[in-house]
Amino acid sequence: MSLSSVVTPALEEIGQRTKQAARQLGGLSTQARNQALEAIAIALETQAAEIVAANQADCQAAEAEGIAKALYNRLKMDEVKLKGAIAGVRDVQRLDDPIGQMQVHRELDNGLILKRVTCPLGVLGIIFEARPEAAIQITSLAIKSGNGVILKGGKEALRSVQAIVKAIHQGLSQTAVNPDVVQLLETREETLELLKLDRYVDLIIPRGSNSFVRFVQDNTRIPVLGHADGICHLYIDQAAEVEKAIAIAIDAKTDYPAACNAIETLLVHRAIAPTILPPLAAALQAKNVELRGDESACNILKIAEATESDWSTEYSDLILAVKVVNSIAEAIDHINTYGSKHTDGIVTEDPEAAQTFFSQVDAAGVYHNCSTRFADGFRYGFGAEVGISTQQMPPRGPVGLEGLVTYKYQLVGAGHVASTYSGKDAKPFTHKDL
Amino acid sequence: MSLSSVVTPALEEIGQRTKQAARQLGGLSTQARNQALEAIAIALETQAAEIVAANQADCQAAEAEGIAKALYNRLKMDEVKLKGAIAGVRDVQRLDDPIGQMQVHRELDNGLILKRVTCPLGVLGIIFEARPEAAIQITSLAIKSGNGVILKGGKEALRSVQAIVKAIHQGLSQTAVNPDVVQLLETREETLELLKLDRYVDLIIPRGSNSFVRFVQDNTRIPVLGHADGICHLYIDQAAEVEKAIAIAIDAKTDYPAACNAIETLLVHRAIAPTILPPLAAALQAKNVELRGDESACNILKIAEATESDWSTEYSDLILAVKVVNSIAEAIDHINTYGSKHTDGIVTEDPEAAQTFFSQVDAAGVYHNCSTRFADGFRYGFGAEVGISTQQMPPRGPVGLEGLVTYKYQLVGAGHVASTYSGKDAKPFTHKDL
Repeated sequence: MSLSSVVTPALEEIGQRTKQAARQLGGLSTQARNQALEAIAIALETQAAEIVAANQADCQAAEAEGIAKALYNRLKMDEVKLKGAIAGVRDVQRLDDPIGQMQVHRELDNGLILKRVTCPLGVLGIIFEARPEAAIQITSLAIKSGNGVILKGGKEALRSVQAIVKAIHQGLSQTAVNPDVVQLLETREETLELLKLDRYVDLIIPRGSNSFVRFVQDNTRIPVLGHADGICHLYIDQAAEVEKAIAIAIDAKTDYPAACNAIETLLVHRAIAPTILPPLAAALQAKNVELRGDESACNILKIAEATESDWSTEYSDLILAVKVVNSIAEAIDHINTYGSKHTDGIVTEDPEAAQTFFSQVDAAGVYHNCSTRFADGFRYGFGAEVGISTQQMPPRGPVGLEGLVTYKYQLVGAGHVASTYSGKDAKPFTHKDL
Repeated sequence: MSLSSVVTPALEEIGQRTKQAARQLGGLSTQARNQALEAIAIALETQAAEIVAANQADCQAAEAEGIAKALYNRLKMDEVKLKGAIAGVRDVQRLDDPIGQMQVHRELDNGLILKRVTCPLGVLGIIFEARPEAAIQITSLAIKSGNGVILKGGKEALRSVQAIVKAIHQGLSQTAVNPDVVQLLETREETLELLKLDRYVDLIIPRGSNSFVRFVQDNTRIPVLGHADGICHLYIDQAAEVEKAIAIAIDAKTDYPAACNAIETLLVHRAIAPTILPPLAAALQAKNVELRGDESACNILKIAEATESDWSTEYSDLILAVKVVNSIAEAIDHINTYGSKHTDGIVTEDPEAAQTFFSQVDAAGVYHNCSTRFADGFRYGFGAEVGISTQQMPPRGPVGLEGLVTYKYQLVGAGHVASTYSGKDAKPFTHKDL
């Protein structure tokens, strides 16, 4: 892909219209936004046959082009899957309203009142792959949080997503929400233009391969919510309980190896390595996990040798790199050097070691005696997940609806001017939280 | 400036050393960090004569080079100014600790406890101009918040800042804090390298001209805290009280015209323009404010005509653009088109108009019946200001110490694995806030 493209007037206009419609949406009550979600749910139900037929046409075309099985499964949306997605729209209605939350309420002086109140970000740019339900889910979350949304789905799902967006527009046309809040882009060229639309788009959420997410991060000035890598570690400390460590390692590696919160590297303290590695390796190998070890691990186990690149590879598969370390400090140093700041865990019965790990490992999630697979918005109880961020600044880690809002400071006075509070007769501020 | 430079091994090593030292610092108690601040204050007091002498040498060299008066005043740091800066270090000790704050505390299941706890960002890169006190202030805030800091001051202040950093290092060497947490860069080439140091630097805070801040924003992948423009508006609604509107406009324009929170454009509703513009113009002109009007304003006042570029210019001077609008919607549209999302105010006695303005204007600060000059971390009661952000995502607006921290999710279990909670015998999560 090349970024030589500039924004065409057509896309400029889409950006402007979405922004305008989103501003109206952001001013609507919780009830009005929930009514819009209900209208979308009903429209999707009414047009279910049409949507499923469009998806069948997508699936046939994809089969004719010899699409990979895994991709086909993600693309396929029968009536059951669609019903599930519609139920999801109603789930979003029940979530707490993320906008209008007061975070600061403070008297600066008599009659001069400061509030910090959450508000929508503006317009979201969502780039997703085959799964057509993603369009339904992300549109619900956008409307709930008062944001406009510009969608770009994978080309193999085009007919499905067109049918979905048609239903969404029809549903919204019965409500206080301008259907312009939801836009669909159809070509790859438009994706590149979307990345340039920083005047109108406030956040890009890319859902795709690691390399695609990295491409987006490197080619836009718009903030990006998401992560390119999920290189998670499990460190088995010298004070680990063997059974617990084995159960956690098995779950963290094999429960769903393609997930970003699965572990890629196992670090084992030298003092416990001879005891734990043989049964642990047997248990992992019984689950078809291929092990690659550093020299010390290979001295204990009959496994292939890991190379330098293994320590920074997200296998997304049943492969696990194993390294023996001399100390917790070496484990932490390895994680901070090769990790992706996603989620890293320690297994230990020593509370001080756990505390050191929590304090020194620089990651969105630091875990003690549990599987890294818990790193997920739903498991955290957020009700929805808009992505997992591995950036350093908030929002970090699994992000719920709060990642789709920002805030404004609202200051109300009665003619207050700043010169009253400076100079030699300066009046002091009261700074009283209300 | 060109960005062809790459990171030299020397700067790579500085980055690595600072990061390492910052990790230690981040694990220290509130008390230990406050003791380090006290040691810095004492060292600065002990070496006051040396620091003031270094500053005199800077000032003499600057004078010899014919430095501008305003810049000279910022550069000059006599004993009184230094004492003020040292008092500032002690003020920072008294601020609430921004790290270790628990933001989420939730049981996911029996014995599986999630916490979200604030922690340091890591390493800050601070690029500032002439004022040598800035090095003292920002170092205090960095250490308070558990962060390392790489400083780069203006070349005219080099001797002063060297003397300050020498004292800071000496002070820290008596404490639990590794002096490596504070680094000083001395050349412009190093500034360019600093922008490339995304492996080690987590936030850049540029303090300088608008064009410099924009240069930094455009040339680094590291998040930037700051704003390039402060194009603030005051809108005088048809339901405004005339006296109140005039007092606010005078303060917002003339209290400190060079400040980013001073207004650059005044918008006046057509219904009130003939009444308010003549006395308002007289009051502003009495304060030496030059007015530039759109056609309608020029029909009422004898003033120069504004051109298109006036609406997007931050004058930072006693100049004010004036535009007559037909409605609050036109005012909001003008602000959202030409503003810089810093701070915009409305003067009105109509609560509904104020509500519309608060909801529709997209800015970090929306103000009602008070001067835009209140947009400031100290005035908001944050105790310290690390910058004012005009980005859309938090932190937005005046940013206190909370802008220097992020958070980690800490999950503690007793051998919990994710597979327990999926599949047909899935155990439900409890999701109970503690």
